[in-house]
Amino acid sequence: MKIEKISLAYGSGGRLTNELIENFFVKNFSNPLLNELEDSALLNIKGNKIAFTTDSYVVNPMFFPGGDIGRIAVCGTVNDLSVKGALPLYISCGFIIEEGLDFSILERIVLSMKKAAKEANVKIVTGDTKVVEKGKVDKVFINTSGIGLIDKSIDISSKNLKGGEIIIINGEIASHGMAVMNERNNLQIEGDIKSDAAPLNDLIGGILREVKVKTLRDVTRGGLATILNEVSQKCHRTIEIYEKDIPVSKSVKSACSILGIDPLYVANEGKCVIFADEIYADKILNIMKKHKYGRKATIIGRVLKENSASVQLITLSGFKRQVVMLEGDQLPRIC
Amino acid sequence: MKIEKISLAYGSGGRLTNELIENFFVKNFSNPLLNELEDSALLNIKGNKIAFTTDSYVVNPMFFPGGDIGRIAVCGTVNDLSVKGALPLYISCGFIIEEGLDFSILERIVLSMKKAAKEANVKIVTGDTKVVEKGKVDKVFINTSGIGLIDKSIDISSKNLKGGEIIIINGEIASHGMAVMNERNNLQIEGDIKSDAAPLNDLIGGILREVKVKTLRDVTRGGLATILNEVSQKCHRTIEIYEKDIPVSKSVKSACSILGIDPLYVANEGKCVIFADEIYADKILNIMKKHKYGRKATIIGRVLKENSASVQLITLSGFKRQVVMLEGDQLPRIC
Repeated sequence: MKIEKISLAYGSGGRLTNELIENFFVKNFSNPLLNELEDSALLNIKGNKIAFTTDSYVVNPMFFPGGDIGRIAVCGTVNDLSVKGALPLYISCGFIIEEGLDFSILERIVLSMKKAAKEANVKIVTGDTKVVEKGKVDKVFINTSGIGLIDKSIDISSKNLKGGEIIIINGEIASHGMAVMNERNNLQIEGDIKSDAAPLNDLIGGILREVKVKTLRDVTRGGLATILNEVSQKCHRTIEIYEKDIPVSKSVKSACSILGIDPLYVANEGKCVIFADEIYADKILNIMKKHKYGRKATIIGRVLKENSASVQLITLSGFKRQVVMLEGDQLPRIC
Repeated sequence: MKIEKISLAYGSGGRLTNELIENFFVKNFSNPLLNELEDSALLNIKGNKIAFTTDSYVVNPMFFPGGDIGRIAVCGTVNDLSVKGALPLYISCGFIIEEGLDFSILERIVLSMKKAAKEANVKIVTGDTKVVEKGKVDKVFINTSGIGLIDKSIDISSKNLKGGEIIIINGEIASHGMAVMNERNNLQIEGDIKSDAAPLNDLIGGILREVKVKTLRDVTRGGLATILNEVSQKCHRTIEIYEKDIPVSKSVKSACSILGIDPLYVANEGKCVIFADEIYADKILNIMKKHKYGRKATIIGRVLKENSASVQLITLSGFKRQVVMLEGDQLPRIC
């Protein structure tokens, strides 16, 4: 891989991030576990299946309607474990703080992490604090890593998809990205735009106990479009989604249209997509709709038998349009 | 805890860092595992003893004689696991990169991490990449978290110390901090000052297989003085060290004296202190001296029976001087 400079797009979660990871990090750190490139690495420790994941959080601004950097630092890592079918157990927490930060800000963040950890029933067991000179970091960056335990009967992987599976999402997309955008730029868009930041382990755990799920993905950076493209490339099947069925709130829709941003590419912090055989659709929807993080769950598409990697959107007017990965970075520092 | 602003000293690894951790983070995230406050958390997963640790690396400059940010990001986490008696297995790696960074710099760092991971026989299995706008982070910060497996027979904890134990260090102190300082400020101090950045798992593993060790600590931020104070406070015993026996290289000694810095407070990245019963002293020294990271191993002190927490230095002239924890931050961003 030969590039000159690292641009923002390499951190977008879209195509260039994937290129950097696959052609550079994975090539250098190569090992069978990393090469899987899922939300968490799947480890075998003394016969136990352990999920292990890491994420750094650099969201700007740190506080926004519906959440803050502390809440997403806990929820994001909990969700990365959950979508591997793991029961999230332990979280680490590394702070990089700018010299001169008001202690009250750190306090607000830490209290939010405490609350989110309690809700997700995970323990923050180890940490690290660095302070760097004023101007050398933007206020606070947080890294969390997490460990979860996977039941032996669970096998979640994009490679399980053979075609014919339905795709269910647990609610409206794009609200996290637009809430941050709105707060950052003071857009004063009408209506209530709130981040969906939430730990999904309880919702996902409830489904996995009842239903055989083939694949599960966290829909974060790069948005629904990018995540579906990743899945499609791994299982080498065409994915079809229906615009009319993709839930987007009215206010998010109007914010997106004002800004010319496609909600399919906007980040979420409390959304997952579930891939399962069609016979399980009703059961999954029933479980989801009873849960506070799944009330607006719906079927948004299906995996086709076609043995070629692509994501097709059936538009409102019935046309077919190819949906590619996020290219550049329309919304930097969204998580 | 009531402070106004976070100063650099809160990230020094010294007294204020300890205060922030104990009176703020631990108080809020409180759970029995975090409360232990050792280099790694000790987890029980399905009957297996697992060590889990995290560290962010913000060293400035990123490259210095004897190492770089990539090498210490791997070695630091490997060592945090090793001093809990764990066999380091898996590492995560989160990059926060400044927009516009030369790709060749990232490449140099990643190749160094690859080399260090190979040397330490650990696998980098999961990662995350964020890119933030120019000026919002200083080039590259790295977080690594690590997982290790602890043999059931091993029980390493400061609380094991009852008095009478000897303290052994694996070589000369203060070289990492002074190498970074020298590079940063272009001090042009004579003699070869190189960071000691090294993975200590092989050295420590060799000792643990042969000898019953009571406590083991990584001597990093805050230097030998701070780490010994932490141990002393946990076991509530007085620790006595002998200035004449503490190994410091000639060039580091002269650099320290020019700058008015006490080497006891300078960071290391490849040093550990071992606390064991005196009968094991020769065996430990023999094993260490045969290892490339332990050639200059020596006994530097002992734990006294006195039931009070303090660290006493017997100076070259035979006087007794109390050694306290690092107070402020004499050398910010050393790791």
